[in-house]
Parts: sequence; structure tokens; C-alpha cells
Amino acid sequence: MVNKQEIQSKMMQAVEAVRGTNPMAGSITNTVTINLVANAQLAVGGSAAMVYLPDEAEFLAKAGGAMCINVGTLLPIYEETLPYVAKVLHETGKPWVLDPVAVGIGSLRTKLLQQFKAYKPTIIRGNASEIIALAGLWGLDGGTEQSNVRGVDSTDSVSGAKVAAIALAKWTGGAVAVSGETDLVTDGSIMAVSYGGSHFMEKITGAGCSLGGVAAVYATATSPFIAALTATTVYNVAGKRAELKVDGPGSFQVQFIDELYKTTAEDIANNSLDIEEVSFL
Amino acid sequence: MVNKQEIQSKMMQAVEAVRGTNPMAGSITNTVTINLVANAQLAVGGSAAMVYLPDEAEFLAKAGGAMCINVGTLLPIYEETLPYVAKVLHETGKPWVLDPVAVGIGSLRTKLLQQFKAYKPTIIRGNASEIIALAGLWGLDGGTEQSNVRGVDSTDSVSGAKVAAIALAKWTGGAVAVSGETDLVTDGSIMAVSYGGSHFMEKITGAGCSLGGVAAVYATATSPFIAALTATTVYNVAGKRAELKVDGPGSFQVQFIDELYKTTAEDIANNSLDIEEVSFL
Amino acid sequence: MVNKQEIQSKMMQAVEAVRGTNPMAGSITNTVTINLVANAQLAVGGSAAMVYLPDEAEFLAKAGGAMCINVGTLLPIYEETLPYVAKVLHETGKPWVLDPVAVGIGSLRTKLLQQFKAYKPTIIRGNASEIIALAGLWGLDGGTEQSNVRGVDSTDSVSGAKVAAIALAKWTGGAVAVSGETDLVTDGSIMAVSYGGSHFMEKITGAGCSLGGVAAVYATATSPFIAALTATTVYNVAGKRAELKVDGPGSFQVQFIDELYKTTAEDIANNSLDIEEVSFL
Repeated sequence: MVNKQEIQSKMMQAVEAVRGTNPMAGSITNTVTINLVANAQLAVGGSAAMVYLPDEAEFLAKAGGAMCINVGTLLPIYEETLPYVAKVLHETGKPWVLDPVAVGIGSLRTKLLQQFKAYKPTIIRGNASEIIALAGLWGLDGGTEQSNVRGVDSTDSVSGAKVAAIALAKWTGGAVAVSGETDLVTDGSIMAVSYGGSHFMEKITGAGCSLGGVAAVYATATSPFIAALTATTVYNVAGKRAELKVDGPGSFQVQFIDELYKTTAEDIANNSLDIEEVSFL
Repeated sequence: MVNKQEIQSKMMQAVEAVRGTNPMAGSITNTVTINLVANAQLAVGGSAAMVYLPDEAEFLAKAGGAMCINVGTLLPIYEETLPYVAKVLHETGKPWVLDPVAVGIGSLRTKLLQQFKAYKPTIIRGNASEIIALAGLWGLDGGTEQSNVRGVDSTDSVSGAKVAAIALAKWTGGAVAVSGETDLVTDGSIMAVSYGGSHFMEKITGAGCSLGGVAAVYATATSPFIAALTATTVYNVAGKRAELKVDGPGSFQVQFIDELYKTTAEDIANNSLDIEEVSFL
Repeated sequence: MVNKQEIQSKMMQAVEAVRGTNPMAGSITNTVTINLVANAQLAVGGSAAMVYLPDEAEFLAKAGGAMCINVGTLLPIYEETLPYVAKVLHETGKPWVLDPVAVGIGSLRTKLLQQFKAYKPTIIRGNASEIIALAGLWGLDGGTEQSNVRGVDSTDSVSGAKVAAIALAKWTGGAVAVSGETDLVTDGSIMAVSYGGSHFMEKITGAGCSLGGVAAVYATATSPFIAALTATTVYNVAGKRAELKVDGPGSFQVQFIDELYKTTAEDIANNSLDIEEVSFL
């Protein structure tokens, strides 16, 4: 039987382990939100490092405790770097987060995301449309052949991505986080629903990308499922609190980083969370 | 005869249409200010997406309502991507904004900006020196052979760019916005002068770049002239208001995004604006 | 004999010269913190411009008063651009700042940093581990063969980098700044120790990178040693003040830019500073 208290307790441990050890999680990520990703990773107690070249990525993969790959803005060198480092991560058993931003746009993006199937990203984080489209690309349950991704936005509901998320988690053996108004996190057998956040998170760029980076930080210290759920929960707590103090998206982003920094293990435990077993499949 | 009220009314409609439909305007833009461009586009109610590769740019050109091309920081792939997507935009009749940052610096920049002449950017936005130098590069009235651009800064006055702006607008059949202490926007037959803004806009990086991105958002919903003037006016309103609340450029940028988010259609109508016909040519 | 008052007086002159002339210092820098670098350069009164391509870099090297090269996130084109522009800077006698971020990671980074030895960067700015590793790479005193850089973080103490810093400064004939809890700046014969700053500077990304950019701004107006020390001092003043007004790293970054903007020549003179002659070598 699923024990909610045990999950909360593990999340609290992850938050404190990260604050206590300042673990490094390297990233290969997009140029739009790269600064926010790094600052969010630092705010929760981690260390950030970003690179583009294959051998530098390999170095970070081996030196860090986890890694985050975000395909938001592909550069030509990514064709070489990304499958190379994903293979290294997979073969060395390092946890890594995949953020399949804008899956369905462009031939290189499609090719890279197909290659990642074999390297089983430990955590997949995306909006509902991205999760559904990635499942479709990988030929898994709940996916659709046609991506409904609109640029970087989702046109599907989070609950509509449930089957795809479970199928992806079962394939990778890791966890999948679907971000939206309420967030789902699953390891294929347990489904967590996390509440909170803010409407301002859609009014700034990078709430999702930086969540992936923070999940990588937690993945250095705990299981993929707990890492993805901890990151999601911290974001929900910090987003909810930041919203109360601001009246625009510029101030929200600043306040949000402050709240990420201030969120405690206890805050995590007190945030609204539902846990259910995936029995319907 | 030019009707100022009609122009204000159209600007108000554009502001509300964007808030109501959340239109996507993709960008190929520089790495320095890419985050601010996206956040400004989101703040006014649009959706942002940035790419580098040719086929991804083509996708955004076709999927979005308009596009923004900013040549601030050229990467090698731009030699392929930019003329390709500009051709797609021109042939499909999609509105697009060109920001000819630092025209005159480097051979690729010069080559790309020359190629764009045939693809007639719907809106050209720049500082006075950039507008004069682009007119010169394209062999139009009011241009000079030698660029007076100093890095990314202007050394010419806005009023000194009037003839060049009109000539560029006549060539493209679209609109030209010249940013400075007061701003000019013209479609070649009407000249609008918009007042407001803040001295802090020169003390942050990206006020101009993000104005181009926001103009692209409005261009999804209205004519090039109204789009350029609406973006310019929103910036003047938000800049003026933000300045009253801050005492440094860091706070200004945050407050400016908040004010972009809060600027209403009515604020647009109430902002100081002069309209005159271009009769002197 | 070393005269502390004379040094303070020169720093005050540099701060005022920059505010009075708005000098341009171009950069080739990393994508993570590129926005902060530009905004920090603007906040102290300089002008910023960033590029990637060789001929554009050459243009900035010649048009600007100084330049900053930061190897944080290498792209393939850097292999061509960086040694080319470093040679131009060296041959034209233009001051330039090298920030050897993450020295020791990857083959291109190592190759580029080795090439820079001959082009004698006027100011080298890094954390303790980077300074020690660069001295090691260049075969100088105080260096180690093995880099202790962890991603972008230092694992060595500032005082432990003293010998390496002096050796680097003696080699280049310029200045070296070692950033940490207290900061060292040396020209090989004088050692300055500057106090202040904030614990939040480690909780945001780019405090170090932007310090390099600001040092380049001051290098347009004064000697390498005074430029490096002025930048370091302004950062210590602004960091200390910003910390008093905030309770998280998001607000800190905003306030820090405001304080950079507000720091006066007098504030520089009043900041805690020790000066000693390098007599022990």
C-alpha cells in the first residue's frame, strides 16, 4: 500500500540533503531560460553548470550527481552532444532529466527525442501536450502521432496526459512529471497529484525549464519519483507564496526565486498532495 | 485626412485582441536579451518561442501569427536560417519584424541585412543610427554609406532618421519605428510621434530588442503601422510608470515588465501622441 | 612605498571617468550570465556589446576601449573567434579581461586557455581554483597540474591562490583578481585585499562573470590593477548594501544592480581595503 507520509518524509530528506551538500547538476539547456534554470538550481541549494560541447558534457555527466537535458533551442552541435551525453548518462547509471520542449517541431528535435528512448531518461518533465507527443513519438500508450504542442505551450489538459505519463514511466523505469494547473508525478505504479503554484507561472518564461533543472538537483539525492515530486512541490509552494506578494510577472519571477530559497522541508510536508496507486491499468 | 482617434481606437483593439487570443510570435533573436524579449511578449498577452535551425524557424513562421528577427548576436547557423525564414515569411505574407541591431558590424551581418531588402520586413525597428545605416545599406533616401552605430548604441538623433524611416517604410510597404527619447513610427505616409518612456530604458539591455518582439505580437492582430505604434506606446506608458516606482535599473526592469502586464487599452488612448501626414516629400 | 590614498584616488577617478564617458567594452561571454554582464556594465556607466563571430569580435576589439573574454560556455565557433580576437587585442595593446571559467573541463577550453598565454590578458579574474589551475596550465608558480575546479565552483581558498595570482600577474604584466569571501587583486608587486560583498553572491549565477565585464569597463579608463580593484571594490560595496535590503537571491540580484548604479566614487574610497607590497617573493 502507498504511504503518503513516507513519501513526504523522503521529500523532506531530499530538500535537506541538497541544502547540506550543494550537489552539482549540469545542464544542456535552452538559451531563453538558461539563466533562470541556474538561479533556481542555486536557490534550492544546488550548483549549476551549463555546456554545449560533447566532451564537456561528458565531463559534467561524470562529475555531477545528475544532469538536465532541455531541447528548447537546438543548436547544430546538439546533434553530436546530446545523444553522446545521454548514452554516457545511461551507461554510467547517472540520473538525468529530459525536458522535451516543443516536441514535434523540426527534424533534429524529432531525431534526438527518438534517440533518447533507448537511453531512458530518469525523469521526464513536460507540459501535457509534450508528454502526450513524446509517448506518441516513442510508440507508447496514451501518445498521439500528431503533436498538439503549440510552440512551447500546451493545448492538452494535465489529466489527459495521465496514460501517456504512466506509459513513459513504465518504459524508462523512472518518473514523469506533467506540469499544469495541478501537477501529476508518476513512477508508473504510483500517481501523485500536487497542488499550488500560480497563474503567473504561465506569464513568465522558464517556470517549466527551471523545474526540470531543480528536479535534476534533487535527483542527486533521492529516487527519480521523489526528486520529481519534490521539485514539483517546492515549485507549488514557492509559486503560491510569491503570488501573494506581487501584482505582475516581473516581480513574480524575483519573488519566486526568493521563495524557492526560503522553502523549508516542513513547507513541503504541509503542501496539498494526493497519492493514489495506478490500479486502473 | 489622418484621424488620430481612429488610430487610438485601433491600438486599443490590438491590445485587447492580443490579451484575448494569446497569439504566438516566434523569434530568432540575440542571446543577450532573449529572456527579456520572451517575458515582454508574455507580459502583453502574447506567446513566445525562440529557435535557431532553419526548419524550426520555418515551422514557427507558419505556425505563428508573426515573427521577429533580431540580428544582435549572429551565430554561424544564421547564415542559413535567416534568409531562408525571411523568404518563407515574405512568400506566405506573414508579418515580420526586423531589428537591424549593430548594422555595419561584420560581413555576415551586412550580407544578411542586404538579403532582407528583397523580403521586405513588415516592421523595421531600430535606433536612429540603425535606421539611417539600414537605409544607406539598401540605397534609399536618408541613408548614409557609413554606419554611425557604436556597438549597439545610437549616435544620431531620432528626428535625424525621419527621412530614412519614411524611405524604408515606402520600400517595404510596412512600418518603421525609430526608438529614442521620443519615438517615431511611420508607414511612409503618416508619421506618429509617441512620448513617454524612461531614462532607465538606456540603462538596461534589451528595451529595444523586446520592443521588437512585442511589435511582432501586435502584428498578429493589426496592421504593421498600428502594431509598431501600439508596441511603442505600451513601452512609453510602462516605462514612464515604472520609473516613478524605482531608483535603479535593476528594479526598473522588474517594474517595467509588471507595467507592461498592467497597461490597459485606455492607458494607450491617454498617452501623448502626435500624428502628422508625410506631406513634405 | 605603496600609497593607499593614491590607489583610492585613482579608483575614484576611474569611477567618474566611466560615468562621464560611457565607454564601450565588448564581450565574448557565456550564455548563462550574458544578460547580467551587460546590465552590470550599463549600471556602472559603461556600454555593452556581445558577439560570436571572428570579424565582429575584431570590430569590437578595435572600436571599444577594452574587451572581456569569458570561456564559460564554449560554442564551436569559439575555436576560431577567441584566439583570433585575443591576438588582435594583444597586438593593438587593448586591455582585455580573461575569465577562465571552469578551466580544466574539456579539450577546447584547455587549448584556448593555453593559447591565451601568449596574448597576455591584461586582467585575469577568477575564483581561487581557477587562478591556481590557470597558473598550473601555464606552468607558473603556485599552479597545480590538476584542476580543483568543480564545475564553475571553487574548492580552494582565496589566500591559497596568492602565489598563483602573483605569478600570473608577473607573466602578463597586468593584474589578477581572485574572487571569494575576501578578494585579492595584484599586479605582481602590490597585493590589495578588498572586503565586503554578500553571501548571496554565491547564490546567484554571474556575480563573477559580470565582475569581469565591469573590470573591462574600468580598464578603458585606468590601469589594469586599478581597473580590477575598482570593479572588485564596487562589487563589494554594492553586494554589502544590497544584502541589507533583501531576504532572498532573486531580490538580491535586482537590488545589486541598483546598488552598482548608485555606488559613488566616495563609497569606493570608504570601503575597507588593505594594501601590501609583494615582498615575500
